[in-house]
Amino acid sequence: MIRFDCDYTEGCTQAVLDALTKTNMEQSVGYGEDAHCENARNMIKAVCKTDGDVHFLVGGTQTNTVVIKTALRPHQGVIAADSGHISVHESGAIESIGHKVITLPSEQGKITAGQIEACVDAHYADSTHEHMVQPAMAYISFPTECGTLYSKAELEAIYDVCKRKGIYLYIDGARLGYGLESDECDLDITDFANLCDAFYIGGTKVGALFGEALVVVNDTLKKDLRYIIKQQGGLLAKGRLLGVQFEALFENDEYFKISRHAIDLAKKLKAGLESKGVNFLFNSPTNQLFPILPDEKLEELLKDFGYSYWQRVDDKNSCVRFCTSWATSEQAVNKLLENI
Amino acid sequence: MIRFDCDYTEGCTQAVLDALTKTNMEQSVGYGEDAHCENARNMIKAVCKTDGDVHFLVGGTQTNTVVIKTALRPHQGVIAADSGHISVHESGAIESIGHKVITLPSEQGKITAGQIEACVDAHYADSTHEHMVQPAMAYISFPTECGTLYSKAELEAIYDVCKRKGIYLYIDGARLGYGLESDECDLDITDFANLCDAFYIGGTKVGALFGEALVVVNDTLKKDLRYIIKQQGGLLAKGRLLGVQFEALFENDEYFKISRHAIDLAKKLKAGLESKGVNFLFNSPTNQLFPILPDEKLEELLKDFGYSYWQRVDDKNSCVRFCTSWATSEQAVNKLLENI
Amino acid sequence: MIRFDCDYTEGCTQAVLDALTKTNMEQSVGYGEDAHCENARNMIKAVCKTDGDVHFLVGGTQTNTVVIKTALRPHQGVIAADSGHISVHESGAIESIGHKVITLPSEQGKITAGQIEACVDAHYADSTHEHMVQPAMAYISFPTECGTLYSKAELEAIYDVCKRKGIYLYIDGARLGYGLESDECDLDITDFANLCDAFYIGGTKVGALFGEALVVVNDTLKKDLRYIIKQQGGLLAKGRLLGVQFEALFENDEYFKISRHAIDLAKKLKAGLESKGVNFLFNSPTNQLFPILPDEKLEELLKDFGYSYWQRVDDKNSCVRFCTSWATSEQAVNKLLENI
Amino acid sequence: MIRFDCDYTEGCTQAVLDALTKTNMEQSVGYGEDAHCENARNMIKAVCKTDGDVHFLVGGTQTNTVVIKTALRPHQGVIAADSGHISVHESGAIESIGHKVITLPSEQGKITAGQIEACVDAHYADSTHEHMVQPAMAYISFPTECGTLYSKAELEAIYDVCKRKGIYLYIDGARLGYGLESDECDLDITDFANLCDAFYIGGTKVGALFGEALVVVNDTLKKDLRYIIKQQGGLLAKGRLLGVQFEALFENDEYFKISRHAIDLAKKLKAGLESKGVNFLFNSPTNQLFPILPDEKLEELLKDFGYSYWQRVDDKNSCVRFCTSWATSEQAVNKLLENI
Repeated sequence: MIRFDCDYTEGCTQAVLDALTKTNMEQSVGYGEDAHCENARNMIKAVCKTDGDVHFLVGGTQTNTVVIKTALRPHQGVIAADSGHISVHESGAIESIGHKVITLPSEQGKITAGQIEACVDAHYADSTHEHMVQPAMAYISFPTECGTLYSKAELEAIYDVCKRKGIYLYIDGARLGYGLESDECDLDITDFANLCDAFYIGGTKVGALFGEALVVVNDTLKKDLRYIIKQQGGLLAKGRLLGVQFEALFENDEYFKISRHAIDLAKKLKAGLESKGVNFLFNSPTNQLFPILPDEKLEELLKDFGYSYWQRVDDKNSCVRFCTSWATSEQAVNKLLENI
Repeated sequence: MIRFDCDYTEGCTQAVLDALTKTNMEQSVGYGEDAHCENARNMIKAVCKTDGDVHFLVGGTQTNTVVIKTALRPHQGVIAADSGHISVHESGAIESIGHKVITLPSEQGKITAGQIEACVDAHYADSTHEHMVQPAMAYISFPTECGTLYSKAELEAIYDVCKRKGIYLYIDGARLGYGLESDECDLDITDFANLCDAFYIGGTKVGALFGEALVVVNDTLKKDLRYIIKQQGGLLAKGRLLGVQFEALFENDEYFKISRHAIDLAKKLKAGLESKGVNFLFNSPTNQLFPILPDEKLEELLKDFGYSYWQRVDDKNSCVRFCTSWATSEQAVNKLLENI
Repeated sequence: MIRFDCDYTEGCTQAVLDALTKTNMEQSVGYGEDAHCENARNMIKAVCKTDGDVHFLVGGTQTNTVVIKTALRPHQGVIAADSGHISVHESGAIESIGHKVITLPSEQGKITAGQIEACVDAHYADSTHEHMVQPAMAYISFPTECGTLYSKAELEAIYDVCKRKGIYLYIDGARLGYGLESDECDLDITDFANLCDAFYIGGTKVGALFGEALVVVNDTLKKDLRYIIKQQGGLLAKGRLLGVQFEALFENDEYFKISRHAIDLAKKLKAGLESKGVNFLFNSPTNQLFPILPDEKLEELLKDFGYSYWQRVDDKNSCVRFCTSWATSEQAVNKLLENI
Repeated sequence: MIRFDCDYTEGCTQAVLDALTKTNMEQSVGYGEDAHCENARNMIKAVCKTDGDVHFLVGGTQTNTVVIKTALRPHQGVIAADSGHISVHESGAIESIGHKVITLPSEQGKITAGQIEACVDAHYADSTHEHMVQPAMAYISFPTECGTLYSKAELEAIYDVCKRKGIYLYIDGARLGYGLESDECDLDITDFANLCDAFYIGGTKVGALFGEALVVVNDTLKKDLRYIIKQQGGLLAKGRLLGVQFEALFENDEYFKISRHAIDLAKKLKAGLESKGVNFLFNSPTNQLFPILPDEKLEELLKDFGYSYWQRVDDKNSCVRFCTSWATSEQAVNKLLENI
């Protein structure tokens, strides 16, 4: 069985494992106040060219919840694509902290500056707006849950609208590395610090055992964030584990190199599928591919391969998701292609 | 200026005012444990032919919040029409207590048994359903926010689905009287106790100064409800004010008679508008009418009449809402018709 | 049966009732945006000599919840006396919106500037303070739940500490009138606008059917308050009912006169009890009295009088509460005294 | 510098590290549905002799929040010692999910069956109990935050009260191993499945990098727990990391052996301190010791040793905390003793 279900089927890169092993019996204080975390924070600030605050959290739902809890007042909501992770796949985590996710219809997982502007304008144009949830933040994923990317122009337009309308922009970068290394990406990591109020650099899906590095750019979101992380159960006791992993990921551009590896194999897989006449539900230039395949073939594949079932397309065909990752081997991709 | 904006522009019926005046200097215990509340609860149980619990609350948002807070566990959500009051007009009250409103597209303000069934089935069919909000209640309004009604067959089908799927059905009856007295209504008030788990009989819009009578039919929703009413700030200190008003409303069928008065005038207004060739956005058989009128005419009307602006229809015409109520006079309707 | 249980056993003053009756068939817009509310707000601003914002709410728990929800961030808590209303008698309303009530031991229902300062200092002195709830507001009641009062000097000291420590001060004035009219009170209503960030003028217990006038002095608490009132189910549909009542209460100093009436009768009752050798649990100079009486006598009184049982004092004696109010008659007090 | 600050200064035991290393490149499904988690769950059920449900979470605050969110209805609160972790050290996590922590005064970190019974009885005896938070769960820590233990008789008495009063009992076992291996402990791990409704076996402080194994004994708490874990951000993507660690901890009684190691060294340290005439604030028979030492000596120790400052005892002496753990060496203890 070779799994292409998702990008977190294995543990961590060798470099991360070595770092954890090497530092295992070191003694340090807890909760992220140790030297490894401090060093990793500085490395990330340097690579992003920002003096934003960096916090390490264990997972994405936790990170999203912490940022949104920090940013919004009780009557405010967060705008997101209807396909956004906070809209559908966090078991109501955002509502559980009191906030509505104001969903916009998305195309290929993306929403536009125009949609966000219209949403905010419609709110204030309504004479009963005090009876409605006030939009106060836009949430986008980069790459999106459909594997697609915002161009630099698109992101600039979105952030411009957010600033003009007085709402925050927050970017979920669970798969940030895979986005940045895509051939179609015209953004680099330093752009993010200038084009949103907060974003996170995903580790769980990009080489770490677990861990996300939250970068808070906007000063008004910085105060007392550690209290809220603790309240959400997100302040890891042995916080240095996060520092150690991010040190390893940002040493020698490891984070970018392993992301590029995943992209190279995704390109190979995509080209192979296209050469066999396979169509795709979303046109993803990153590590998640969404081919449409006959149900019969999918049934057969299950004997040897893992994938995520996505949705029915017609009565004989379905869309599934294949992910590559830092851990995928070229042989695995070849074997999958042979079987399709 | 004659207001047709909504059905709560005046105070209360003479009978309610007399009852409040007459009982004003009586002494009673607080929080709804007085004799007037006890009597009004019994009157309502008798008229509804139910042994459900009856609680009096001040307003609709409060009532909806209390019921939903009582019924749902933290990971659960409530299904509602996208036009439902809890979906759009309660400033995120439902999210503020931790629950997602799972919206379904509606037609003329209504959702169907089939939609509810599909929504629940889709949840459990998804292999990642533990990552999604679990639907656990359906919320409908009777009449809807568009003035429309569910037929008895439609309501039976909805409740049947809810029972089969193990979710609650809750009916928001802010304008219940106006629904029951519509010519098109084939339900009577005793049907509600058999066709849902909880519903409320609206007083604020139907003759009272304020007040809603919540009827909790399902035993599992009865326990400790007063704690939750208190926690939500809904336990009126001088609770007897609610008892006194509902006594007056249900004495001599007052509630139904005043509702019928509103319906009669709505019918007259509707017929008058139709005779002038006016079209309607929703086909409402109750006290809310949604005519489409030229913007120019609407502008002119504003000098003498109040209405609620609803939505733009095309570049020259808009839909507005005219409401009749227990307090509307025939002269007012005549005068409005003359001016259109 | 004559009730001294509490100060909300009757309806409203004749002036309030007359105003409601007179305006009953007026038409107005909803949710507090009508002319009566506007006028009442201006009257209150004038009497308090403040340009703070005034909002009308139905009850005290609702008002407390709205203010605290508006003021605190998620990791913050509110300091209160262990006997404070929000600490014990709101069914967890404050916790239900996510905030800890940080209780301080109280004497006769009061807390001191020194205690508040020590509480805040202790928080920041603790090296693990990010793991603890951050105190961000002090809540006091005036009069307290024990009927006692803060002197002007005490209140100045408390507000001074709050400002120095960067926390809000909020005053629950459910019985404000009865405090202001006490012989021992050296504050007048204009002082409150200068000695806290927000306070409310209680109507429910002081002459109205229901209603509290929230005065928000601090600009940072003003923004979007109506959204939060709506979200908490506190935006009364027929909001003008609150405006009409407060107009009546503040016309011709009615509010102060009726409060003085209650104080005069409380003084008479207290003097009468003292002359019979009765001791008191709290030394209240306001309309709530807390005499300690033999259980046998209390049992006997129940035949003709209502009171609130407070607490056991020893195996033969208990403390109970007698309240006078705007509605209490001198005969009632005489009769009670005759029976003790 | 040798750290005795806490029991989570190092990474994990060699066995845990080896298991993580060995399984690192295995592919598995996420979120705890893999074979390692399944195996670890079975091992824990076997060692505890229970057919309760076992869930793995990353940390203690998360675990406590999930259990309490699952168990309580909105108007209910959880009884805890005033020194309990949920009372003081979780940044308001319990309040953030809407529940009051009802604190009881504790002695040496412990509360009694009698106190719990009195607390519940007092609630229902109060005629205004619907205005108060309803106690619905008791929370105790084993060992307590003061290092002390409940005897089997004490725990039986507490659970008996809880069952009689209809409230849940939940035990926070962050340091469970260190409690079980204490000479003074008369409970073994199989007792817990019979003496509470849910408890957790702490891994973070006892040999794992991170991780707690929650054992849910009471059937009514089992339903849909994974939704709530996900909602709280506690469903680790690479869930197998938790399974792998707990497999290693429960293979060959590792968990108990490493706990015993910590206890042996704590005993040695305690005996050494006692022989030097040192007194203790709490009489702890587990791995946390609370000696009272002169401030001057404490200042001097800081050059070479880490400890947690606990509290001032008098103007020249303070209490501090020394922890031993699975990772403490005998040399470290000797060196500390030499320096005192």
